[in-house]
Amino acid sequence: MAQPEHTADAGPGAEPAGLVIEGCAALVHGPGGEVAFAEDAGIVIRGGAIAEVTSAAAAARVPAVERIDARGQVAMPGLINCHTHAPMVFLRGFAEDVPVEEWFNDWIWPVESNLTDRDVELGALLACAEMIRGGVTTFADHYFAMDRVADAVTDTGLRAVLGLAYFSSQGAEGRERSLEFALSRAGDADGRITTCLAPHAPYTVTDADLAATARLAREHGLLVHLHAAENREQTETSLARHGRTPIEVLERCGLLDTDVLIAHGTGLTGADIALLGRAPAAGVATAPRGYLKFGWDPTPVRALKEAGVPVGLATDGAASNNTLDVWESMALTALVQKSAERDATWATARQVLHHATAQSARVVGLGDRVGSLAPGRRADVILVDLTGPHTQPVHDLAATLVHSARAGDVRTTVVDGRVLMRDRQLLTVDVPAVAAELAPRLAALTERGHGRRIQSYDT
Amino acid sequence: MAQPEHTADAGPGAEPAGLVIEGCAALVHGPGGEVAFAEDAGIVIRGGAIAEVTSAAAAARVPAVERIDARGQVAMPGLINCHTHAPMVFLRGFAEDVPVEEWFNDWIWPVESNLTDRDVELGALLACAEMIRGGVTTFADHYFAMDRVADAVTDTGLRAVLGLAYFSSQGAEGRERSLEFALSRAGDADGRITTCLAPHAPYTVTDADLAATARLAREHGLLVHLHAAENREQTETSLARHGRTPIEVLERCGLLDTDVLIAHGTGLTGADIALLGRAPAAGVATAPRGYLKFGWDPTPVRALKEAGVPVGLATDGAASNNTLDVWESMALTALVQKSAERDATWATARQVLHHATAQSARVVGLGDRVGSLAPGRRADVILVDLTGPHTQPVHDLAATLVHSARAGDVRTTVVDGRVLMRDRQLLTVDVPAVAAELAPRLAALTERGHGRRIQSYDT
Repeated sequence: MAQPEHTADAGPGAEPAGLVIEGCAALVHGPGGEVAFAEDAGIVIRGGAIAEVTSAAAAARVPAVERIDARGQVAMPGLINCHTHAPMVFLRGFAEDVPVEEWFNDWIWPVESNLTDRDVELGALLACAEMIRGGVTTFADHYFAMDRVADAVTDTGLRAVLGLAYFSSQGAEGRERSLEFALSRAGDADGRITTCLAPHAPYTVTDADLAATARLAREHGLLVHLHAAENREQTETSLARHGRTPIEVLERCGLLDTDVLIAHGTGLTGADIALLGRAPAAGVATAPRGYLKFGWDPTPVRALKEAGVPVGLATDGAASNNTLDVWESMALTALVQKSAERDATWATARQVLHHATAQSARVVGLGDRVGSLAPGRRADVILVDLTGPHTQPVHDLAATLVHSARAGDVRTTVVDGRVLMRDRQLLTVDVPAVAAELAPRLAALTERGHGRRIQSYDT
Repeated sequence: MAQPEHTADAGPGAEPAGLVIEGCAALVHGPGGEVAFAEDAGIVIRGGAIAEVTSAAAAARVPAVERIDARGQVAMPGLINCHTHAPMVFLRGFAEDVPVEEWFNDWIWPVESNLTDRDVELGALLACAEMIRGGVTTFADHYFAMDRVADAVTDTGLRAVLGLAYFSSQGAEGRERSLEFALSRAGDADGRITTCLAPHAPYTVTDADLAATARLAREHGLLVHLHAAENREQTETSLARHGRTPIEVLERCGLLDTDVLIAHGTGLTGADIALLGRAPAAGVATAPRGYLKFGWDPTPVRALKEAGVPVGLATDGAASNNTLDVWESMALTALVQKSAERDATWATARQVLHHATAQSARVVGLGDRVGSLAPGRRADVILVDLTGPHTQPVHDLAATLVHSARAGDVRTTVVDGRVLMRDRQLLTVDVPAVAAELAPRLAALTERGHGRRIQSYDT
């Protein structure tokens, strides 16, 4: 166990801290970035940032506006959902037990032609509530009516990396509106909102549009967030049609020279992984639940690690994944990766916690701002209660967190130093009101008799 | 949706019901055994059994000693953990990220030589608390010092199918004590305890002992609960050494002519499955989390279903599985089976709920007593809250239960008509007291310097 630093208290006359958390174990990163735990620790938060991680005794001497007694709990960096379509919670459980082509063409894309801005905002609010309750403090969203998602982020207090999705079937307007959103909302919500460009995928966006997106990303210093090599079939189809894998298409369009966040990558080839390894700022988001459901391969995490590509955790949208539970993605990543490699010694609890913290922060382009309980980082902190019978006794904190604890064990969620949930009570969203307004809208939202759809899935 | 039956109230002068649950949706089984839901239902419980599943309005007219308003909740048969080693929660997270040989030989079997009866009882109490909180109402246990587990079951109010484990290395005494336990504790705890014979596995129990166990089982009408074909390697080793698979060994010893509960079966061959299909009362327990962790194949659920063999859900012990969360086993069974078959249309939410209810009850030999909310069955009922943001909105109750709800959404657990947890408050176990007594015992319990072990793993 690493020992927390013992530092002097701020002394008489110092400004009180905004928030002090006392008496917890704290997940910290060692000198080589490795996951470690400081026992009996205290966390001092000033101006929405972590001022110090110290001993509980030292923290107890720091005057503060607000204090949390966190004995029996573990403080860790808030989880990061590296790829989701948050508003889609309104379709949770709507299209089940069907293959991906049918899921897109007969269920999702027809009903998405019914979407109103208010549907999107209600979905985003419900999603934010779910994520705050599950210890998610940042999410990377890729969807429509993104201004409304930005409003929900502003209201609920979460941090988000937002991109307005587009298809080439929308003409130049799709790409232009994605840029317009990215430029207009960057830095909103006191800096909690960052933005990106969000082409849908190489199979729905032309090479010309992808190349234009790469140029715009470089010009404006923006991240690009898109789906690519989602499954093996997409890779095979791309090879058959274009003689290139989806990743080779991205490379040719210049997207691997930008900050790029690739969702899924379960169809990556060895050559693709080598390309990603040479890219300066490429990351992959893995959402294992949906891959199991659709019968896809897992993301090749071991090969990506060997190539030096960070892999972050994600849930995808709840229409396919049923939850926005990144805690479950963490456990499933450990389980599925051990299974895929047939190696019980791989994907250790500490490794998976590294994906959940430092690597996820890098993947969404916030590697210097969140993902670690370290001085200077924004104060995105969650407190996890380990006193329940399902988490007792504790032989090893990492194993308990990854394999026994659940999203429901998160008692307190803090973003930018502000408490969004305390002792399981949500402080910024009224779930019953949102659910009550959403319920009567579902009939119109899920109407499929009109024969329209926003796009066709043909990999 | 099936409509609940509307029946007359009991009328003036009738004895009040013990418990009435009102206003929930209820998971029921249709005429062909299929899973269905009765909306706005009421459940009337008399003498610890289900008297009727009726409408909420009809239930409201029934006088009762105790009533539960269950609006916004789903009532379902309590979950059944078809194979566990409950006391092993004391080793939760103790031996991680190691292959199975090392797990047994270097970690588990050495420390099990330190076990005291009190360790086992404390572990069992903690396990019962976890299971009650996770909606498990029955568990099939296979471990040592089983009298102490029976005491914990008696005290906590759960239902259990208990077997005292033995190895042939114990000589005839092991087998005799397993029988003695089975005969002495059968029917205890007002009938909530049933018992079985519990040879460890074909690789640790000789053919002669297995054959003797089969004779004793037939003579006393007992279930036999054992590990077999746990993984592919065991099957291959058995073929190489004996020219027979583990299941063929069981068949030759007469065990397939008895009521037999086989744990895991991830190494079953096609011929094994045919043998099990011809057996009169064989069932398999699947605990998918541990198979992923160890890099084993999944239990071949589809082939077993085609052969007519019931498959129940299980968690194994928490030393390998980290939790006794049968809810997670349910979700993982859906996910892993879809993945293994590469078929998104297979292992539907309703099918998996059938495994969790009717099939699990059959597998543990209680097919006529629990596993369904039907008149005459014992009143083992759980109430699941679906109002949380992670379970809203509900398009399909089966999908919501399997893919979005969590063990922590169980608000109330009832066994034999008695409320063991109400609104998340445990009423029969003092978890802090158990955890506090267990904690200082862990150093002695986990000592491995003595060089002893209770058995060797050599498949």
